[in-house]
Amino acid sequence: MDDNYYIEQAINLAIENVKSGKGGPFGAVIVKNGEIIATGTNSVTSENDPTAHAEVKAIRNACEMLNSYQLDDCEIYSSCEPCPMCLGAIYWARPKKLVFAATKEDAASAGFDDSYIYKEFSLNPSHRHLNTITVNSENKTKPFDIWNDSQAKIEY
Amino acid sequence: MDDNYYIEQAINLAIENVKSGKGGPFGAVIVKNGEIIATGTNSVTSENDPTAHAEVKAIRNACEMLNSYQLDDCEIYSSCEPCPMCLGAIYWARPKKLVFAATKEDAASAGFDDSYIYKEFSLNPSHRHLNTITVNSENKTKPFDIWNDSQAKIEY
Repeated sequence: MDDNYYIEQAINLAIENVKSGKGGPFGAVIVKNGEIIATGTNSVTSENDPTAHAEVKAIRNACEMLNSYQLDDCEIYSSCEPCPMCLGAIYWARPKKLVFAATKEDAASAGFDDSYIYKEFSLNPSHRHLNTITVNSENKTKPFDIWNDSQAKIEY
Repeated sequence: MDDNYYIEQAINLAIENVKSGKGGPFGAVIVKNGEIIATGTNSVTSENDPTAHAEVKAIRNACEMLNSYQLDDCEIYSSCEPCPMCLGAIYWARPKKLVFAATKEDAASAGFDDSYIYKEFSLNPSHRHLNTITVNSENKTKPFDIWNDSQAKIEY
């Protein structure tokens, strides 16, 4: 099986997801050692969860299956270029490869304007459309101090 | 109650989260009409879920509580500047305000180098450290075509 095979599986999941009415036109599969170990489809509207994008769902499912918070030696195949949230999730999950088919420009043509969010990211927080306020609490670094001093912490 | 009050709640959650051993030093609260309607703390390692960051958890909890996939008229208070995944989640959840205390530079000093991920975002996919491949499938826009033609779709 090659990249084309797995990407078609992701695209098929996306198509079936729209037909089923469960959510947006996105699907993802996660492969380890040549085997599909988990899949995910967009279920934002059916689960009332704005984070339930295909890649996030697939990552959660794969990590549950692997009993790990990292996708060591895994490959993520997504029907479409990941949005910023999903790309961030992929970086935290640390797979060895990401493969996608449609681009964010294709997604934009269907009304999913991830590029707006990507643009916002490049701005200083105070210049974003999202009203963003920084509060300078004297306690703001306390959680990090306690973390740094903790012997029991599990780094991730 | 003002921003300072809610941000201290988020910081306290972060501190308690480290002490409990459940995960990283991050906490978030979501406020609607002056009331805390949901909270979230990092549980990446205890739940084996790399997406279980404080803001993502809080958003999921709030949406479940509101029975909605959007956080209309809500405010998100985070103990720390959101990582790219969480910032993306916040954009999809569409709250009216984001407030945070510690900055991503503070987080970096505790070993949470979100700025690496932010930098990766600014690069063309083929130039990122994450091995990223685009497959030009002839079916790649089919999910979007079916979505556009669907009468039953729920846009989000």
